[in-house]
Amino acid sequence: MCGIVGLSGTNDAAALVSLMMQALQHRGQEAAGIISREVTENGTYFYQHRSPGLVGGSFSDEESMNKLYGNAALGHVRYSTAGPKHRNKAAQITDAQPLLHDGVALVHNGNLTNAKTLRKKLELDGVRFETEIDTEVIMQLIKVAPQEKLLKRLEYVFGIVEGAYSLIILSRKKLIGVCDPLGIRPLIFGRANGAYIFASETCAFDIIGGEVIDEVLPGEIVVVEDDKISRHRFAKKQTPRKCIFEYIYFSRPDSNWDGENMYLARSRLGSQLAREEIARDLDGEFFGDDLIVVPVLDSGFPTAIGYAHKTHSRFSPALVRNHYVGRSFIEPTQEKRNLKVLLKHNVNKALVRDKRVVLVDDSVVRGTTARSIVGLFRQAGVKEVHLRIASSPIMYECHHGIDTQEGELLSQGCDSIEEANERLKVASGADSAAYLSRENMIRAVRGGTKCDACFSGNYPTSLTDINFDESIV
Amino acid sequence: MCGIVGLSGTNDAAALVSLMMQALQHRGQEAAGIISREVTENGTYFYQHRSPGLVGGSFSDEESMNKLYGNAALGHVRYSTAGPKHRNKAAQITDAQPLLHDGVALVHNGNLTNAKTLRKKLELDGVRFETEIDTEVIMQLIKVAPQEKLLKRLEYVFGIVEGAYSLIILSRKKLIGVCDPLGIRPLIFGRANGAYIFASETCAFDIIGGEVIDEVLPGEIVVVEDDKISRHRFAKKQTPRKCIFEYIYFSRPDSNWDGENMYLARSRLGSQLAREEIARDLDGEFFGDDLIVVPVLDSGFPTAIGYAHKTHSRFSPALVRNHYVGRSFIEPTQEKRNLKVLLKHNVNKALVRDKRVVLVDDSVVRGTTARSIVGLFRQAGVKEVHLRIASSPIMYECHHGIDTQEGELLSQGCDSIEEANERLKVASGADSAAYLSRENMIRAVRGGTKCDACFSGNYPTSLTDINFDESIV
Amino acid sequence: MCGIVGLSGTNDAAALVSLMMQALQHRGQEAAGIISREVTENGTYFYQHRSPGLVGGSFSDEESMNKLYGNAALGHVRYSTAGPKHRNKAAQITDAQPLLHDGVALVHNGNLTNAKTLRKKLELDGVRFETEIDTEVIMQLIKVAPQEKLLKRLEYVFGIVEGAYSLIILSRKKLIGVCDPLGIRPLIFGRANGAYIFASETCAFDIIGGEVIDEVLPGEIVVVEDDKISRHRFAKKQTPRKCIFEYIYFSRPDSNWDGENMYLARSRLGSQLAREEIARDLDGEFFGDDLIVVPVLDSGFPTAIGYAHKTHSRFSPALVRNHYVGRSFIEPTQEKRNLKVLLKHNVNKALVRDKRVVLVDDSVVRGTTARSIVGLFRQAGVKEVHLRIASSPIMYECHHGIDTQEGELLSQGCDSIEEANERLKVASGADSAAYLSRENMIRAVRGGTKCDACFSGNYPTSLTDINFDESIV
Amino acid sequence: MCGIVGLSGTNDAAALVSLMMQALQHRGQEAAGIISREVTENGTYFYQHRSPGLVGGSFSDEESMNKLYGNAALGHVRYSTAGPKHRNKAAQITDAQPLLHDGVALVHNGNLTNAKTLRKKLELDGVRFETEIDTEVIMQLIKVAPQEKLLKRLEYVFGIVEGAYSLIILSRKKLIGVCDPLGIRPLIFGRANGAYIFASETCAFDIIGGEVIDEVLPGEIVVVEDDKISRHRFAKKQTPRKCIFEYIYFSRPDSNWDGENMYLARSRLGSQLAREEIARDLDGEFFGDDLIVVPVLDSGFPTAIGYAHKTHSRFSPALVRNHYVGRSFIEPTQEKRNLKVLLKHNVNKALVRDKRVVLVDDSVVRGTTARSIVGLFRQAGVKEVHLRIASSPIMYECHHGIDTQEGELLSQGCDSIEEANERLKVASGADSAAYLSRENMIRAVRGGTKCDACFSGNYPTSLTDINFDESIV
Repeated sequence: MCGIVGLSGTNDAAALVSLMMQALQHRGQEAAGIISREVTENGTYFYQHRSPGLVGGSFSDEESMNKLYGNAALGHVRYSTAGPKHRNKAAQITDAQPLLHDGVALVHNGNLTNAKTLRKKLELDGVRFETEIDTEVIMQLIKVAPQEKLLKRLEYVFGIVEGAYSLIILSRKKLIGVCDPLGIRPLIFGRANGAYIFASETCAFDIIGGEVIDEVLPGEIVVVEDDKISRHRFAKKQTPRKCIFEYIYFSRPDSNWDGENMYLARSRLGSQLAREEIARDLDGEFFGDDLIVVPVLDSGFPTAIGYAHKTHSRFSPALVRNHYVGRSFIEPTQEKRNLKVLLKHNVNKALVRDKRVVLVDDSVVRGTTARSIVGLFRQAGVKEVHLRIASSPIMYECHHGIDTQEGELLSQGCDSIEEANERLKVASGADSAAYLSRENMIRAVRGGTKCDACFSGNYPTSLTDINFDESIV
Repeated sequence: MCGIVGLSGTNDAAALVSLMMQALQHRGQEAAGIISREVTENGTYFYQHRSPGLVGGSFSDEESMNKLYGNAALGHVRYSTAGPKHRNKAAQITDAQPLLHDGVALVHNGNLTNAKTLRKKLELDGVRFETEIDTEVIMQLIKVAPQEKLLKRLEYVFGIVEGAYSLIILSRKKLIGVCDPLGIRPLIFGRANGAYIFASETCAFDIIGGEVIDEVLPGEIVVVEDDKISRHRFAKKQTPRKCIFEYIYFSRPDSNWDGENMYLARSRLGSQLAREEIARDLDGEFFGDDLIVVPVLDSGFPTAIGYAHKTHSRFSPALVRNHYVGRSFIEPTQEKRNLKVLLKHNVNKALVRDKRVVLVDDSVVRGTTARSIVGLFRQAGVKEVHLRIASSPIMYECHHGIDTQEGELLSQGCDSIEEANERLKVASGADSAAYLSRENMIRAVRGGTKCDACFSGNYPTSLTDINFDESIV
Repeated sequence: MCGIVGLSGTNDAAALVSLMMQALQHRGQEAAGIISREVTENGTYFYQHRSPGLVGGSFSDEESMNKLYGNAALGHVRYSTAGPKHRNKAAQITDAQPLLHDGVALVHNGNLTNAKTLRKKLELDGVRFETEIDTEVIMQLIKVAPQEKLLKRLEYVFGIVEGAYSLIILSRKKLIGVCDPLGIRPLIFGRANGAYIFASETCAFDIIGGEVIDEVLPGEIVVVEDDKISRHRFAKKQTPRKCIFEYIYFSRPDSNWDGENMYLARSRLGSQLAREEIARDLDGEFFGDDLIVVPVLDSGFPTAIGYAHKTHSRFSPALVRNHYVGRSFIEPTQEKRNLKVLLKHNVNKALVRDKRVVLVDDSVVRGTTARSIVGLFRQAGVKEVHLRIASSPIMYECHHGIDTQEGELLSQGCDSIEEANERLKVASGADSAAYLSRENMIRAVRGGTKCDACFSGNYPTSLTDINFDESIV
Repeated sequence: MCGIVGLSGTNDAAALVSLMMQALQHRGQEAAGIISREVTENGTYFYQHRSPGLVGGSFSDEESMNKLYGNAALGHVRYSTAGPKHRNKAAQITDAQPLLHDGVALVHNGNLTNAKTLRKKLELDGVRFETEIDTEVIMQLIKVAPQEKLLKRLEYVFGIVEGAYSLIILSRKKLIGVCDPLGIRPLIFGRANGAYIFASETCAFDIIGGEVIDEVLPGEIVVVEDDKISRHRFAKKQTPRKCIFEYIYFSRPDSNWDGENMYLARSRLGSQLAREEIARDLDGEFFGDDLIVVPVLDSGFPTAIGYAHKTHSRFSPALVRNHYVGRSFIEPTQEKRNLKVLLKHNVNKALVRDKRVVLVDDSVVRGTTARSIVGLFRQAGVKEVHLRIASSPIMYECHHGIDTQEGELLSQGCDSIEEANERLKVASGADSAAYLSRENMIRAVRGGTKCDACFSGNYPTSLTDINFDESIV
């Protein structure tokens, strides 16, 4: 996952882009980058600043920002999924976006499923790559496209690349937003302060008082030029396959996508989880007065509140977070992640002692934190601890941009939800564990059709690279 | 406010102190400092590292930490209250603690009420001060004390200084905790990893798996030497006057003090607020189905949950926080604070549109953020917005370490709670505003007697400096 | 109290009147009576049947009913308040209504406050009374009135009588409804099956599928003749003083009066009681999980449900009624009443053992059943039992038709609600007792102005008989 | 169904029995009878009083009661199930119990399944029957039994009769309680006022302040003689088959049987119904704020309260009962029943208008009242009306004493619960209808094994009479 923003039409371009990036910081904390464009009498100039870490670090530094001249800019926050060894070494700043080639700057959120194949072909054609990221494939394709006009070149490129891609492109004259034919990743456009803006989520509009016009629709190119907007469809209309994981975990709760609010979707996931719990509770004794509902970290809040509300149980945020440390899911290496769990959380013993605790979390990927968190509750003197997950078991790798790598997924290979529950119970050491059924998960997340490949294995794109035999080439 | 920790008896002294400081980060974010002590065959050495900003910054840096040798250490996180121009200029690193003089290191949480007077006297006696902080007065007094033994010198000093002080002192052989005769600020001691530890709050024990032995009692000196502990009373037993604001806002919710858990105290403050609301709700129509209870930021969570639970209203955390920016209350200048409100929060419109919103906050000091937050809700399309404060109007400056300066207090000079409510309503632009009565506030916060001077003006200490006429001297 | 009905314009007159009387049975169980009117070619005939006890007894007997010919009828269910020794001897059937004199039949609900005075005068004038009831005073006045036309005679009479009176009169040609100038007792009129109907409460309309047109307004005479209706005001418009006790206890919960539904009014009385309880509950510990809310008999249901709903406590009808015995309040002698309490109720021990019980009742008059009911709960093994009354202490005799006689009222002479609470606590043996404040009682009972004389002593009528010195005459 | 009581050892025998019968009045309202026994120096005498209708009628008459001399008595309240034309003609008083033959008086609750067969045989043997009830078969068998001692004769008889029988027998010296080998009908014994007592339900003990000793166990004879008690087993221990319908509907809510309280069992039936509802409520929208839970008559209260509590919906007793008319289920003819529905109930329109109403009833037998009640709600202006039944579809006739005759059962012949739901929906005209599943019904009703033959068709007794071919004999 990454977060992307673009803006054209106002003087503070880079500053506003920096603010929008802060609103999207949850989408990537490994690196951040801005490219601004200045149009002068003497020509058009691009300025770039890229830095590892949070936006709030180097980009709140006046000196750096003051050099990003111009009235248009792109921004990118990076969460390293692509690049072969991406989680085994420190992020390379050269791999950071935005990319800039020959007067075209570009930011990308998503993952191409034929990047490797295309790259090989391009390399055989003599193209020399500067980074290891799939985004550069798009960039190189734009360069080698036979057409002259940028819009035509883009249509050519998007006829070739496969996978999930939401892009914002800044050329000498234009600001362009693109969404892949299935609409897998979000991209929204609107206005703020007289400028046109693009961003991955609507929360980035709110931070600068912007207003949403619409989504960039699946298979659409939206072009801003001379303060005018035009929309171009480059692919036939298909059933969209919006990433369900954006609703479950990734997007910020105050963002909306496809007519649905993320908090409300998560709250309904919690309600569905509650509904399944009540139906299981044959003797009507699960929801006793000694039961409290505790969210697992911030991301578990909306689902736990939904669960507690539906069951009328006591909502009790007893897992306390040290707010001065970052988010667990997107840190680079496994080892560091474990250490941080202990540093980041404390169980408020006074709330949980002699209670039966229902721990509600939005999802389980690797399950690495589950055991340590359950352990924290045990040490705090709970009577029982029950783990409830407001989504289904993740059994398949995501090929569209989320860092859920095969081999690391706790539920991989499970034949049934019961097996996944049991595996989670064992892995976490909880007294019981239960996922939400896929049927009710989909019911809770309204709006258009979803890509639920990580739960079902039904990938909506051709996975060209997977079948790519390097030796053949 | 500040946070202090001390530890003696294990090799990782500085590393563990750094972790404990992270747990106390909410008590001060302006600067952090560690002094470690190494006892070698050649002598005893002290090492120091002080840095502005968060602990997680420079103190997670291996290089810096590796130089803090030894098996004992003190740590301090600083929230600038003392020093004459403390909120009008950037914090001076020279004013940062721990202080170290002649083999005695010291960290202090609290505020002396006769520091100015004592300093003047010492200066007239020829003592030269290196910092502007009141802590140095204690340090200089220890130096000039006529006694030989450190413990005796301390008893001498604490017979002279007035005000609120919790101290940890690290000498060549001892680790010492001291609490003022009224017990205004917390100081807890216990064990972890074979070492003795002191810290401002119990949450700092949890982060390293420590166990609490007891509080340093009011008027007590607790001495650790050669892995043995001894307790000495230096003042007569008085009715303690523990700071009520620690319960309301300052301490972390997972900390305990004087037998009371902070979250539970806050939850009860919310319940009392609810009880007063229900009693006011003459026609039984306030708590309609279109009413939601929204906490103001993280610190409002426990009270808002208590309020929603008592009234069975829907708890809805619709004010979203950008977690990548720090805490508003302890930033240095007023101007910056206002800007940050906008950057830090977003209202989730999908949750609040056409709702009646009860905004619950723990306390109001200056009231600077109230108007902007109410404004955010109005813009989000609410039907009504009602502000409810789970403590009483703050009408008096704190002279014991909390940054509530006269002239800035919204409720200063109010003759009644009704007047304070009205003033808050006007200041915030809310449809209604109500504080909790002092009677019920005190009822909710259990445990021993409290200092509620900021609410009542009943200061438990003599305010010598206030009446100090500099011209006389 | 009594219940009255009248009907004109359909063949089953007596049968329908009998049904309506069953709907009003709660207003009087001592005796029932019907007079029907048959208009034939040979003249107009009246038929009468009066019987002690319930309507369902003799009036469901076909033989009796078949003799009540005609297409108009009056019905009356009697609850003996008037007649000097009314509760010390068995009801005299000669005192039962309807009364019939010279082609005028009459039923009366209410109580005249100058009946005794007027009767003495009439007797001095040579009028001979056949019954001891105040209703006959009206009847005799109609006879002696100097006017010729019935409507004029009535206007004359209602210029003389004082007190509370809702009347239905059946003459040879007319059916007439009358309400006193203050509207103290209800009287409603409407249509059913092509006939015009009058009844004390709207529930009597429902039983035969009738529709309400309006109330007979205070100071109004409504005349039905030849299937036409005409309305005449006989007194100046005054602030109405509708009996608050109809809302609290007397009317059936499914009746409406003055735009207010009785169940909803009672439910709000329970909510107000709850509100006062919550405000009293300083430590927030009254409403624990071991607390159940139990209605005292059927009349306590709406208030107890309102109380339980507002406090979110468990509503638990643990006081079981043997439905085969009548209502306690309207039985004739004190002694019998006590015995019946034991026969009529049982406490469901399985529900209350080791619970804290909040017993909610609508009102307390004599307090005679309170002690025995509290005793039943004690024997059932409760932890505590708390008595809550959803109206204020009754401190004054009713002079307008309700059987609350001075000397029998538990709260008589109390100077404050606290004193009344204490007296009820002692009288009942409960762990605590509390009435609703008068202020909140009035708030809960919406609609027009009320007569609350039994609570306040503010009688809206002149109490001529009270000051009547018999010796003078 | 019937209710039976017996008592021995105190002077007021008949009066106390009469009170106990009032507590059991719900078990039968067609007739009541008492036989008392007086032991004098001159001999032992039996006195009898039997009367149609309620106990409260003739048995509260002093004159009648004063003639029932003696310190032992039996009582019976009758609900006519046996006797060939039992519901097509008025109850014959000669068929009323107790029966008395040759110094043995007997009351019976239950139904023999080989009575017809045995009677035929006895008649062929020359026995002349005086009544048409199966109880007389037992009486005649006792007479013709070859043994001498009564206890032995009884053991002989209970080796022959089949079916459900709880009996109390009063002989010249003994008071005896008997329960059939499967324990189908309840019979409890205990003490009160120094006497031994037997009764069908524990609520009859409460009315006279009695204490329960134990149940008469399945296959047991309990003999009281000379103030001593002895217990005799006459049949091998089998899995008991207690009638589930006692839990669902028949027993009073304040009675206990087999360790289970009836109210709590019904409340759990309502909870299970709620649980199934929540599980069905896929989109989480059924339980909106406009939904109210309304019990169908008194018997629906515990289940509706359980349902409302579990779903946290508003419990609203909007179906008002005219308490002066008896219980629908046990009235003799179908025609009368329909009329009474209308007379007995009124919907409180003010509570239900524009609401979605969930009508909760304990069970549906014929479904005759469902349509009229749903109709009442429609007329009252509801938005929707949903019928929920807290037990399973009754598909089979009861052969053990409950008046559920084949040919009249609404759900007879249904192949699934879905079909029964649909049939009920159509029959009632409700917007939806749902029964509780058999699995969850049984789960809710705790205690020992149940006879659920009316739901499952699994009869625990041999149904000899059913297969009895009269022509053969």
